[in-house]
Amino acid sequence: MNAHVLHNDPDRLFPADPGTRAVARRIYAATAELPILSPHGHVPPVWLADDVPFRDPTSLLVTPDHYITRILHAGGLELFQLGVGRPDFDETSARAGFRLFCEHWADFDGTAMRYWMIDQLVSIFGVTQRPSAQTADAIYDQIADWIARASSRPRALMDAFGIEFLATTDDPCDDLGFHDVLAADASFSARHRVVPTFRPDKYLEPGRPDWVASLDALAQACDIDCGTLAGFTAAMEDRRAYFAAHGAVSSDHSHADLETLILEPADAQRLFTAARAGVATPSECDVLRRHLVTDQMRMACDDGLVMTLHPGIIRSHDEAAMRTYGADIGCDIPARVEVAHALRTGLEAYGNHPNFHLVLFTCDETVYSREVAPLAGWYRGVYIGVPWWFLDQPEAVLRFKRAVTGMAGFSRLSGMVDDTRAFCSIPARHDMSRRLDAAHLAELVVTHQLDEDEAVAVAIRLVADNPRQVFKI
Amino acid sequence: MNAHVLHNDPDRLFPADPGTRAVARRIYAATAELPILSPHGHVPPVWLADDVPFRDPTSLLVTPDHYITRILHAGGLELFQLGVGRPDFDETSARAGFRLFCEHWADFDGTAMRYWMIDQLVSIFGVTQRPSAQTADAIYDQIADWIARASSRPRALMDAFGIEFLATTDDPCDDLGFHDVLAADASFSARHRVVPTFRPDKYLEPGRPDWVASLDALAQACDIDCGTLAGFTAAMEDRRAYFAAHGAVSSDHSHADLETLILEPADAQRLFTAARAGVATPSECDVLRRHLVTDQMRMACDDGLVMTLHPGIIRSHDEAAMRTYGADIGCDIPARVEVAHALRTGLEAYGNHPNFHLVLFTCDETVYSREVAPLAGWYRGVYIGVPWWFLDQPEAVLRFKRAVTGMAGFSRLSGMVDDTRAFCSIPARHDMSRRLDAAHLAELVVTHQLDEDEAVAVAIRLVADNPRQVFKI
Amino acid sequence: MNAHVLHNDPDRLFPADPGTRAVARRIYAATAELPILSPHGHVPPVWLADDVPFRDPTSLLVTPDHYITRILHAGGLELFQLGVGRPDFDETSARAGFRLFCEHWADFDGTAMRYWMIDQLVSIFGVTQRPSAQTADAIYDQIADWIARASSRPRALMDAFGIEFLATTDDPCDDLGFHDVLAADASFSARHRVVPTFRPDKYLEPGRPDWVASLDALAQACDIDCGTLAGFTAAMEDRRAYFAAHGAVSSDHSHADLETLILEPADAQRLFTAARAGVATPSECDVLRRHLVTDQMRMACDDGLVMTLHPGIIRSHDEAAMRTYGADIGCDIPARVEVAHALRTGLEAYGNHPNFHLVLFTCDETVYSREVAPLAGWYRGVYIGVPWWFLDQPEAVLRFKRAVTGMAGFSRLSGMVDDTRAFCSIPARHDMSRRLDAAHLAELVVTHQLDEDEAVAVAIRLVADNPRQVFKI
Repeated sequence: MNAHVLHNDPDRLFPADPGTRAVARRIYAATAELPILSPHGHVPPVWLADDVPFRDPTSLLVTPDHYITRILHAGGLELFQLGVGRPDFDETSARAGFRLFCEHWADFDGTAMRYWMIDQLVSIFGVTQRPSAQTADAIYDQIADWIARASSRPRALMDAFGIEFLATTDDPCDDLGFHDVLAADASFSARHRVVPTFRPDKYLEPGRPDWVASLDALAQACDIDCGTLAGFTAAMEDRRAYFAAHGAVSSDHSHADLETLILEPADAQRLFTAARAGVATPSECDVLRRHLVTDQMRMACDDGLVMTLHPGIIRSHDEAAMRTYGADIGCDIPARVEVAHALRTGLEAYGNHPNFHLVLFTCDETVYSREVAPLAGWYRGVYIGVPWWFLDQPEAVLRFKRAVTGMAGFSRLSGMVDDTRAFCSIPARHDMSRRLDAAHLAELVVTHQLDEDEAVAVAIRLVADNPRQVFKI
Repeated sequence: MNAHVLHNDPDRLFPADPGTRAVARRIYAATAELPILSPHGHVPPVWLADDVPFRDPTSLLVTPDHYITRILHAGGLELFQLGVGRPDFDETSARAGFRLFCEHWADFDGTAMRYWMIDQLVSIFGVTQRPSAQTADAIYDQIADWIARASSRPRALMDAFGIEFLATTDDPCDDLGFHDVLAADASFSARHRVVPTFRPDKYLEPGRPDWVASLDALAQACDIDCGTLAGFTAAMEDRRAYFAAHGAVSSDHSHADLETLILEPADAQRLFTAARAGVATPSECDVLRRHLVTDQMRMACDDGLVMTLHPGIIRSHDEAAMRTYGADIGCDIPARVEVAHALRTGLEAYGNHPNFHLVLFTCDETVYSREVAPLAGWYRGVYIGVPWWFLDQPEAVLRFKRAVTGMAGFSRLSGMVDDTRAFCSIPARHDMSRRLDAAHLAELVVTHQLDEDEAVAVAIRLVADNPRQVFKI
Repeated sequence: MNAHVLHNDPDRLFPADPGTRAVARRIYAATAELPILSPHGHVPPVWLADDVPFRDPTSLLVTPDHYITRILHAGGLELFQLGVGRPDFDETSARAGFRLFCEHWADFDGTAMRYWMIDQLVSIFGVTQRPSAQTADAIYDQIADWIARASSRPRALMDAFGIEFLATTDDPCDDLGFHDVLAADASFSARHRVVPTFRPDKYLEPGRPDWVASLDALAQACDIDCGTLAGFTAAMEDRRAYFAAHGAVSSDHSHADLETLILEPADAQRLFTAARAGVATPSECDVLRRHLVTDQMRMACDDGLVMTLHPGIIRSHDEAAMRTYGADIGCDIPARVEVAHALRTGLEAYGNHPNFHLVLFTCDETVYSREVAPLAGWYRGVYIGVPWWFLDQPEAVLRFKRAVTGMAGFSRLSGMVDDTRAFCSIPARHDMSRRLDAAHLAELVVTHQLDEDEAVAVAIRLVADNPRQVFKI
């Protein structure tokens, strides 16, 4: 193999030991071709509704992927060079941005971003040249040619990629018109379910400067007065019902901590009033937020929407960068998180409710064995979310599996969640997950902790059954 | 090998690489047949004293094992279906409970519970059918037949299992009559030492609602007035001496944190009085508890009882379940623990005392490399407890070994502690530990970090010498 | 191979799987002979300036190495038996101390200390007998013979060890005379750069009892009045400039936490005045210290000195030992550390400044994947320090690599820093690092996450390019 030729080795990510690798190959074969279920992610629904063609290679692969832009920023580039925050990013700029990315290719050595990118370059675009200053233009042209084809439109890719179920992430006030368009296309919707996800974070954060404005928008969206907590609660329930009626299976929540608490109604109303009036202290806002998030658990018992929690991220750690480029550009940084004490009140109230499913994600891997696996091994409603964001590279995924399965088994796992904005990376991400499932299960087989037929059954369950059961698909 | 036939592979848990596996086999051979020393566990002494026959397969293998019942609870079963809290658990119920366990067998895929259970099923009961709805009755019958044999009584099993030393866990007010019975049986006690362990937690927690009642019981047990701190201290010293005279080698402690402090006598007395009167605040109760636990360290220097610490567990996280079923049913959840600051006062006072041995356990693996190994690598009295509870599965045990030995070596390790209520799992648990010792040592040998003769010596030391030295057996 | 003969296996630390090992060998071959760059360590510059012969084997290998003395302390020895704090440590005592070390050799089984020691014994001193009571004297004599040779003087060893760049650690008031001596030796300095490192900790800790005295010394050293904060700041800038002029490339900082903050000038002056007067509270002293450390970040942007942070150590945890023997004897214990919140203020102000390089070390491995790699993957000035102190053994180093490279790649790594006082262990430590680089990279190659030519390029970059770029060598 010429080292400079990109290729997707059929044994990639499998254990090095030949005996273990042979077992991994057999396990992987059982899931490699199964359809993709993607119960949480960030693909804009408009792409599918309008079947928008992708613009150029940089806008497709670099600009929207904050995993990539952050490393290039650390390496000295300015985000605008990569198209971030530039509606005026023309073909010349895109080509120049792509060349910068290729020049910095070695900065991705050893990273998951390199793995996903090569998987896409080879299997989707047919690129086999290693990115570099010399090859940048040729690769750019090759991808641009691919983009120009009708078969490269998002809806066609849903078939090509084998995506059966795809959840987007949406504002509670969204009218879900794009989802309606897709549902109305009988031919498309016979083969694919594209559903919204209820993401109410900003309505649950009374400390945000835009909170009152958000509540006003919410009131307008459902024609319910949000001047009182009772009104706000009714509005939330109304929008959750609207989402559920449009196919949503889950709500998604990302706050600084996981603290749950249930205030006395009068106390809750008092804090709500103060927050609306802008006179609540930061700590009162935190208390109210925790109450409101815990109240979403109650609603989940009623309406059955699965609750996913993505806590413990310091958003826009680099405030100067945020002021220039906005949010979600790659400078969010994880922080320590506490789970067992924080969730206690909520789980005591709702944790074993037959209708309640809570999927716990974390960027703090210390809680895997200490708190998350123990909680999911007792409470019927608690499921272990797969590794998320900074922990979705191969080694971290294996650490996760080794940390949780010894105590909690496989029945408490959520199944793969790609959580991505990078549409074309979805197959590579799910394939990586299946390969790592096989790698981990093969280890158990060769150390005689699982028989091979059981390992194959587990692999299939992780890809096909667990997501359906946990996310009620 | 028919995949559906259970068997205990002779190479189980050994590394996959053939060269490393061959080394592991040779190391394991040196310890496989050594007698079992179990310096901390939860076998009820009455079983041995009265040589009580086991009741039925469910009561033997499922009901008392909260590792197993917790997963079944998460999987949707009610604990009463498994016999928890049911003195009326008759044969029909037991058989039904066992079937439920077998139906949920796949929920244990990849877990240590599956490993231990198969080891027992095959090597103790001769079961070779994989548990399932179809095989449940046959397996139940086979185990019931085994139970009915005279050779399956607890005392006979002490021989069959090769258990030389077994420590139970006992209330300070216990008269240790069961231990007396065993000691009086010259034939039994020539082959086995069964000793009590002093477990004073509830007497050291002034914040517990039953604390004053506990003190009254203590006063009665040793005929010392516990109305003053001096009296309480004398009573504690008296009962520790009583335990030591009955063969105890250690005291065991499990509180929410590891904080040590030494109050001025007058302050201590003042808090003690307030707590007795029920007027101490929660934080005063914490302070007093920390003082009382630290005072146990002082007593340990005097009477030589080894001190084991099992901190950082949120007891009965699911309070509703506890109200129904009581404690120790599987809903305890670990929490973050801090060691280095917390123990400083206690270790400065007693940490290098020649009579003082402290064995540190944790369910928070973040402290292994950061705090526990560094402390044990300096203080003469501090030893590293082997992985405990949620961390006793194979992968976690290997993580532990890789986390602590590089800095602290093997001389600072406690040796295997099974900590189990599941009597028949004791051989499987110790065998697992020896296999993992061999696996880890083999890795060091093949990477040329240890010669094979040294690795064999270490393996023997971990099984035979370290527990004797650390626990003063 | 006779098991009792020490030898340095050419494959040591390489993965066991034969295929992976073959790759590791080829990668290692590319860096094995490259010169050593040591940008942070604790070799006393007087050794090189005066080319002082080493005294005896114990003083060379045991006494100054707190990694070793701490384990021997835990094992029951008194530090004075090993020469700690004994100017009167004569040949008889040294020989007796060395024998004690050899008798306790098995206490080092499985540790990095054993690995480094064997590497030195074999490759530097030609010792092939395993240390023991029986072999102690012969080994002692063999090393003593080696010490007596002219070729064993420190300056000659700089050539023999292939050390091209060596940074010492120095007090800001130091006149750097020893460095002047070395720089003046044209023949030596043509082959070796020995530079100072600015270590201002004690001047930045207003809570230390010797702080005012330190400021007086500082004032004298640079003839600037330190009675005001402006004066202190000018003095700091003056000494940093002095160090830079003498070749320093970095400043080193080790405080209890990483908190950064920037006070209003008037507030800072007020706290400074209070602290000078001895009337600042402990918490005011902490605030002032954080301000002063953050101000070193500002200075780093101006003068370009790289900033290395070594936080989170409880110094002299065993105060009684410190009272007897002083600091740095082996009883420092790591504690939990928080990075992302703590550094936010400092990084927002300086984190992307083109002149600013910050190298983050930690003894708390939980922050690798959660905070350190994410920060270094965004901020241009943040680099990931290699594993430090309690985490520099092989398994911990591999954990580190697996924790950070999947997200941050290799371009954000500092390269090897040995941080050692044990001069003769420098080659063994750098060789270990290169072997582990090769081991890790080989894993990536055989799992098809990196091509072998790329892995070789990365290995060279980690040894040769990263330290030069990160430390501005």
